[in-house]
Amino acid sequence: MIKLDFHPAGRHFLQIPGPSPVPDRILRAMSYPTIDHRGPEFGALGRKVLADIKKIFKTEQPVIIYPASGTGAWEAALTNTLSPGDTVLMFETGHFATLWKKMAQALGLKPEFLGLPGVEGWRHGVRADMIEARLRADSAHAIKAVCVVHNETSTGVTSDVAAVRRAIDAAGHPALLLVDTISGLASADYRHDEWGVDVTVSGSQKGLMLPPGISFNALSPKAIAASKAAKLPRAFWAWDEIIEANKNGYWPYTPNTNLLYGLSEALDMILEEGLDNVFARHQRLAEATRRAVRAWGLEIQCADASMYSPVLTGVMMPDGVDADEVRKRIYERFDMSLGQALGKIRGKMFRIGHLGDCNDLTLMATLSGCEMGLKLAGVPVAASGVVAAMEYLASHADSPVLKAAA
Amino acid sequence: MIKLDFHPAGRHFLQIPGPSPVPDRILRAMSYPTIDHRGPEFGALGRKVLADIKKIFKTEQPVIIYPASGTGAWEAALTNTLSPGDTVLMFETGHFATLWKKMAQALGLKPEFLGLPGVEGWRHGVRADMIEARLRADSAHAIKAVCVVHNETSTGVTSDVAAVRRAIDAAGHPALLLVDTISGLASADYRHDEWGVDVTVSGSQKGLMLPPGISFNALSPKAIAASKAAKLPRAFWAWDEIIEANKNGYWPYTPNTNLLYGLSEALDMILEEGLDNVFARHQRLAEATRRAVRAWGLEIQCADASMYSPVLTGVMMPDGVDADEVRKRIYERFDMSLGQALGKIRGKMFRIGHLGDCNDLTLMATLSGCEMGLKLAGVPVAASGVVAAMEYLASHADSPVLKAAA
Amino acid sequence: MIKLDFHPAGRHFLQIPGPSPVPDRILRAMSYPTIDHRGPEFGALGRKVLADIKKIFKTEQPVIIYPASGTGAWEAALTNTLSPGDTVLMFETGHFATLWKKMAQALGLKPEFLGLPGVEGWRHGVRADMIEARLRADSAHAIKAVCVVHNETSTGVTSDVAAVRRAIDAAGHPALLLVDTISGLASADYRHDEWGVDVTVSGSQKGLMLPPGISFNALSPKAIAASKAAKLPRAFWAWDEIIEANKNGYWPYTPNTNLLYGLSEALDMILEEGLDNVFARHQRLAEATRRAVRAWGLEIQCADASMYSPVLTGVMMPDGVDADEVRKRIYERFDMSLGQALGKIRGKMFRIGHLGDCNDLTLMATLSGCEMGLKLAGVPVAASGVVAAMEYLASHADSPVLKAAA
Amino acid sequence: MIKLDFHPAGRHFLQIPGPSPVPDRILRAMSYPTIDHRGPEFGALGRKVLADIKKIFKTEQPVIIYPASGTGAWEAALTNTLSPGDTVLMFETGHFATLWKKMAQALGLKPEFLGLPGVEGWRHGVRADMIEARLRADSAHAIKAVCVVHNETSTGVTSDVAAVRRAIDAAGHPALLLVDTISGLASADYRHDEWGVDVTVSGSQKGLMLPPGISFNALSPKAIAASKAAKLPRAFWAWDEIIEANKNGYWPYTPNTNLLYGLSEALDMILEEGLDNVFARHQRLAEATRRAVRAWGLEIQCADASMYSPVLTGVMMPDGVDADEVRKRIYERFDMSLGQALGKIRGKMFRIGHLGDCNDLTLMATLSGCEMGLKLAGVPVAASGVVAAMEYLASHADSPVLKAAA
Repeated sequence: MIKLDFHPAGRHFLQIPGPSPVPDRILRAMSYPTIDHRGPEFGALGRKVLADIKKIFKTEQPVIIYPASGTGAWEAALTNTLSPGDTVLMFETGHFATLWKKMAQALGLKPEFLGLPGVEGWRHGVRADMIEARLRADSAHAIKAVCVVHNETSTGVTSDVAAVRRAIDAAGHPALLLVDTISGLASADYRHDEWGVDVTVSGSQKGLMLPPGISFNALSPKAIAASKAAKLPRAFWAWDEIIEANKNGYWPYTPNTNLLYGLSEALDMILEEGLDNVFARHQRLAEATRRAVRAWGLEIQCADASMYSPVLTGVMMPDGVDADEVRKRIYERFDMSLGQALGKIRGKMFRIGHLGDCNDLTLMATLSGCEMGLKLAGVPVAASGVVAAMEYLASHADSPVLKAAA
Repeated sequence: MIKLDFHPAGRHFLQIPGPSPVPDRILRAMSYPTIDHRGPEFGALGRKVLADIKKIFKTEQPVIIYPASGTGAWEAALTNTLSPGDTVLMFETGHFATLWKKMAQALGLKPEFLGLPGVEGWRHGVRADMIEARLRADSAHAIKAVCVVHNETSTGVTSDVAAVRRAIDAAGHPALLLVDTISGLASADYRHDEWGVDVTVSGSQKGLMLPPGISFNALSPKAIAASKAAKLPRAFWAWDEIIEANKNGYWPYTPNTNLLYGLSEALDMILEEGLDNVFARHQRLAEATRRAVRAWGLEIQCADASMYSPVLTGVMMPDGVDADEVRKRIYERFDMSLGQALGKIRGKMFRIGHLGDCNDLTLMATLSGCEMGLKLAGVPVAASGVVAAMEYLASHADSPVLKAAA
Repeated sequence: MIKLDFHPAGRHFLQIPGPSPVPDRILRAMSYPTIDHRGPEFGALGRKVLADIKKIFKTEQPVIIYPASGTGAWEAALTNTLSPGDTVLMFETGHFATLWKKMAQALGLKPEFLGLPGVEGWRHGVRADMIEARLRADSAHAIKAVCVVHNETSTGVTSDVAAVRRAIDAAGHPALLLVDTISGLASADYRHDEWGVDVTVSGSQKGLMLPPGISFNALSPKAIAASKAAKLPRAFWAWDEIIEANKNGYWPYTPNTNLLYGLSEALDMILEEGLDNVFARHQRLAEATRRAVRAWGLEIQCADASMYSPVLTGVMMPDGVDADEVRKRIYERFDMSLGQALGKIRGKMFRIGHLGDCNDLTLMATLSGCEMGLKLAGVPVAASGVVAAMEYLASHADSPVLKAAA
Repeated sequence: MIKLDFHPAGRHFLQIPGPSPVPDRILRAMSYPTIDHRGPEFGALGRKVLADIKKIFKTEQPVIIYPASGTGAWEAALTNTLSPGDTVLMFETGHFATLWKKMAQALGLKPEFLGLPGVEGWRHGVRADMIEARLRADSAHAIKAVCVVHNETSTGVTSDVAAVRRAIDAAGHPALLLVDTISGLASADYRHDEWGVDVTVSGSQKGLMLPPGISFNALSPKAIAASKAAKLPRAFWAWDEIIEANKNGYWPYTPNTNLLYGLSEALDMILEEGLDNVFARHQRLAEATRRAVRAWGLEIQCADASMYSPVLTGVMMPDGVDADEVRKRIYERFDMSLGQALGKIRGKMFRIGHLGDCNDLTLMATLSGCEMGLKLAGVPVAASGVVAAMEYLASHADSPVLKAAA
C-alpha cells in the first residue's frame, strides 16, 4: 500500500510556482462537513465567497467560480465569448501562452500567435506595441479577441495588462481582452475593472493557496453581451445559468463544497493581511531571490527588469548543465521541489516559486537548498546568494508578527 | 463573519442522496500536503487511483478522472463521441435525465426524448423495449448514441442497463451506449464491461463518499474509436491527452491533488469492505426504509419493485401536503437534511438518502426524524415506520464489527 | 499494522457516559500548531481559557487546569488540602465514590465511608441528613473534609450538593466540602460558589466534549487557606505555583497546549449555545431515554426520581440476564458502545450516555440500537421504547437550527 | 475572540528545544475518533503502544505511560521508589536538574545537590567521578537514589549516563539510578537496560514529536522491588495498578486516547526511519549548528565537546547583550521562536532547538533567522554561520528522499 502521507523527517519544501503549499488553516476549513448544496447554510457560504472573490479581482462584475481546475477556465473564457472560426490574437510569452493557443485551435478558433523570434519571447513580456500594430492592420475587425497571459508561470515574466488595454483602445479595435492570471492572482497586483479586461481567467492553487480544483472567470458587461451571440457549444462552462443561480449563492449543478470552504478561508486570510501587504511581501521575497541568483553569477530568465514576476523566478543554467539534473539532486538531497522548465526551454532553467504562504525564513531555506544543490551538481557559483538575500531581507524587513498584531 | 463550521449541538444528519457524508478517514486523507503534480510521489498516487477505480467500474478499459464535478463528465461523454447535429436517443426517467437531454441540445446535438406520458416515467425505469422499437425503426442509423440514467437520483429508480444493451444488440444497431451512474456507482451493482457500456459517467460525492469535485468517464474501445472521428469541439474534456499522460500516472493539466488523496482513501475503504458487501448493505438499508414508508401508509415514488434504488427512496406526500414544508420542519427541528423533489414533481415528495457512509443506526436516526417530522407536519401516519424498520433490521442483521474484524 | 482509524461503514455510536464523542470543531482546534508555551501567543490562550472556565464552574475563584486526566484531579483535591492521617467523610454513591475513597486510603488519609446498605446506596444519591448527623457527632472536628460525588457516572444518580452544604452548615462543622463532578460539569447544573463548595474536581472528556487529558480543581478561599497548612506531600499537583503562573496565562511546567486549544473551542461552543440551553437539552434527552426504558418494562438504576442524571441512564437487566452480553451483542451488531456496569453491580445493568455533543436523532439511533439489541438478546421488551421516546421528543421539541440561528 | 490559528503569512518556525513542531501525520492521528477506553479497539491500541515504546527506551521492562505532562513523571519516579526523609543524590547540570531537586524537597525527600561552583556546572555534564566519591563516602548507604538529567534542556549538555552507572557500581553502592531524559529520548542515543537505569523519566513533546500531555517511567526489576517498600504516598502515579491493567492494553483510569493515537503514529514514524538514522540526523544538524555559532564568533554554552547535545545548542551572548532582546527581535521580525535562557543564566544565552521533525532546510531557515536577527540586534558577527553550516551539510549530506524510498 502506498503511504500517501509519507515524507522523510521534517517538512517537504514545495517551492514550485504552484500548486503552492496549502496553509493548515485552509486544510482545516476544507474538512468542515459537506452540506446540502441546496440548503440555507450553503447559500450563505456561496454568497460570501462570491462577494469576497470580487475584491481579489478588483471588480464589481460577476466572477464565475467553476468546480474545475484552471485549464477549464481557459476553455470557458473562449467558448462563452467566441464562435467557430473566429480569429483570436494571442501573444507567445511562454509555455502556458502556447498551450492556450493550442486549446483555441482545438476548439475550432483561428489563433494568430504574435511573438518575438526563437526563445526571446520567453524572456520578455507581452509587446503591446506589436498588438496595437496588428489590430490597426485589422480594419475589418476579423480579430474577435486578444488573449494574453499576465504572469507567465513558465518563465517568471509579468506582463503589463493595462498597456495591452491601451493598445487595443489606441487601435480603436472592438476585440475583447481575455487575460490569464492563473498564477498572478492574489500575488501580483491585478485590476480587472480598472484595466478594462473582459474576461480574466484564474485558478485556486497559486496565490489563493488552495489545492487545485477551483477556477474562475471574471467578466465584463461587454463579455456578457458577447456571450449572448457566441456560437461555440457550451454547457458546463456556460455563464448564464451560473450567474442566475449565483444571485442567491447557489450553483446550477453540484459545486465543490469543501474547496469552497477552503476558498472562504483563503479569502479571509488574504483580506486580513490586506492585498497591498500581500503584494509587497511577494515583491520583497522576489527581490531577495533575484539578488541570490545574481550573486551566484547566474542569469534570471526574465530579461526585462520591469517585468520581473513577484510569483516565481526562473534561474538559467550555464551551457552544458541539465537543469533537471540539478532539480533532481536538490529533491533527493534536500527534499525540496523546484519547478521544471517546460516546452522550448526544457532542461535550460529551473523555477523557484516564492508565492502564497511563504515568508522570509521559508525563502531562506529555499535559497539555501538551491545554493547547496548547485554546488553539489558542479554548477560554478560566484558568491553566496544566501548571504546576498539575507542582506536584502535584513535591511528591508517588515515585521510580520507586529504587523499581524496591529 | 459566517462561521462555516457552526452547527447546533450534535451532528447534522445529511440524508440527501448526495453529496453524502464524507467519512473522517477521507477528510483526513484530503489534508495530506499538496505535492508537485509532476514529481515522483504524484505519479505513484496517480497510478494507484487509476488502477483501483477500474475495479469499481468493473472495467479493464481506461477510466478518465476529471478535476471537475459530475455535470462536466456528462459533457465529456457527449463531446468526445459525437459530432454537431448528431441524433441521440435519451430516455426520460426523471429530472437528471431531463437535464442531460437539455445539455445535449445546448451542445448542438439532436436529442430524441423517449418516455412514458406525464409523471409516469418518473416512477418507472428505462423501458428497454421502447428503445429497441425505436432503434429498429432507425434503419438509416441516424441515432448515434443511446443515453440512459442508471440510478435516477431525482426519483429513486434504478434501471436495468444490461437490458438496454440487449435491446440495442437485438435491434442490430451500432449506436453507442452512454450511461449516467453518478449516484449509482459504488452503491448499486454496476458492470461497465459486462454490460457493454461505451461511456459510463460518474461522480465522487455519492457512493464514493468524497466531496464533489471529481468526475469520471469509463470508456470502451468502441467509444475511443468514436472519439477519433467525433467533431464536437473539446479541449479540457478531451480523452486522448489524458489517456496518454495517465499511462505514467500524470495528467496533461493540473489535477486536483487533494481530492485524489481522498479518492485513494475511498477506494481503500470500499475495497476493504468488499464491493459485494457494500451493495448488500445498501440493499438492506433501502429495504428497511421502504418498510418504514409502507408502515406510515405513504407511497414510494418508484412504482416498480424490480427497480427500487438501493441509494435513495422517494417518499410521496398525500395530496395537499407540501413536501418542502415537511422537509423544512424536519431540518429546523431535528437538524436533518432530506432531498427535495425536483422539476415536474417539486413539492410532491421528498427523498431519503441511505447511501455511502451509512449504517443501521444512522438509518434509524433518519427514519425517526422523518416519523416525528411527518407527525408534526400533520401528515397522517398509519403506523410506526421506525418499528417496522427495526423489525426488518433486527431479523436481517449482519454484524459490521465482526465482519470488519474478519 | 493496526489501523487506528478503522471502523465499519458509517459512524460508530459512542454512547458511554464519557469519554463522549468529540465534535469535529474541537478535533480541528486540537490540530492548531503547537507553540512556545512561554511565548506571547500562549499567554493569550492561557488567559482566555482560565477566564472562560470559571463561567462553567460558576465561580469567581481560581480554577486549576491540570495537564492530566481526571483521577489526578481527585488526588490534587486531597493532597492540597489535607495532612497525613486526616479523617475524611465520604459517601458511597457508586463505583467512583468507592474509588475515590480507596485513593484517600492510599494517600494516607482515614476515610469514613457513609452509605446505605448493600447496593441500595448505588440507586440513591448522597443522604445529606446522614452527613449532618455524623458531623454533629464529631464535636472534636476530627473530620477535615466531606467528599461527595455530584454525578455518579457508574449509576446515573445526581446528588444534591447544595443540601450537603446546608448539612455541614447546620452541623456547624468546619470541614471542607470537596465535590467530584467529573461527569456532571457542563451537562448538569453546577454552582461552585453558590453551593459553597471548597474544591470541585472535574475532567475534560464528558460535558466539555474533549478527549481525556485535562482535569480541574475549582477552589474556594477556604480551600486555598487550608492548602497553606496541609502536609500531604505534593509537587505536580501543588496549587500555589500554578495560581501564581496562571496570573499571566502561563503554567509553571509544560501545559498540554493542543488540548487547551480544544478546551478553548469547547468553551466557545458551550457559551455560544448558553449553559441553560445545554442543561435543558440534557434534561430533555434524559427524559426521553427514561420513557424508553419504562416502555421496555425495565427498571432505571436510579431509584429516586429527584436525582435522575441528565448525563446518563442506568438500565437494569431482569434477573438472569448478563448485561455485558447484551452490550457485546449491540456492539457487534450495531457498532454502538454502551457503558458497562462497574464494581458491585457488574453485569446487572448497562449505562446509556446522552451527554455532550448529542441531539435528538443521535439519541433515537441509540435507543433504536438498544431496543433491537435487547430483543436479539432475548430480553423481554414490553413495548417500543423508541416510540415512547419519539412521542416525548416530538411533543417537547425545541428547534436547534432556529435557536442556533437566533 | 482570539483567533488561535492565526499566524502571519507562512509557517511559524518553532525552534525551541521542545515542544517541538508536531508533524501533520501525528496531528491527523490525534483526530481519530475517541473510543470506549474499555472496549476491544482500545485494548489493541494500548498493547501496540506499550510494546513499541519499549523499543525507544531500549528496554524489556515495563514502561509506564502517564496521561500527564513530563513534570508528573519526575514525581512518579520519586514517589514510587522512595520514602519520606530519604536522601537522594542529585547533580546540578542546569535549570531542570535544579527543578527536580526542588521537587524532591517538596515531596519530603532530602536531596543532596552535587555540582561545580557558580555557573560552571551549567556548561558541563554530570561528573561521574564526583558521584562515585560521594557514594564511597556513604558507607551507611543513607543515599537511596542517584538522580541525573541525561540531556539538560536548559543548556544543551548531554551527560554520560553509562558512566554514572559505572560510578555507582564502582562504589559498590545500592542506590537506585533515576534518569531524566525528557528532552533526550528519541533524539539522543539512550539505553535503559544496557546502562542499568532503574527509572527513566521522559515526555512526549520533544523527540517523540507529540504535543505535551504524555509522560513516561521506564522501570527496572530493582525499581519495581523498591516500589513495594517505598512509603511516599501515591495513587495517580502508582505503578502497580497500571502495570496490572497494562497487561491487557488498558489503564486503571481514563487514558488520554487521542494522544495515544498520536504516540502510536510517532512510534511508527520513528521506527520506520530507524532509531540509528534518527540519531545520526540529530547529530548532523547539531554539528551544522555549532559550526554556524563558531563562525559567528559566539560561544557554545556547552563547554565540553564530548557532551554536545544533539537536541539543542545554547548560544552565549557577548557581555552586555540581552539574549531575550535578540530573541524578541527574531520573533517579531522573522516569526521564529527560540528558547529562552532559564534560571541562573537568564538573559545570557538563547537556545536553538534542532530536534524532532527537523531537516536540513528547516535548520538553514533557522540559522538564517538567527544570523539576520543577531545583526539587526547589533551583535557583532564574525562571519556567516549560514555559509559555514551549508558547507558542512553539503559535504556531509545524506539523501533523505532516497533513503526513505529504500
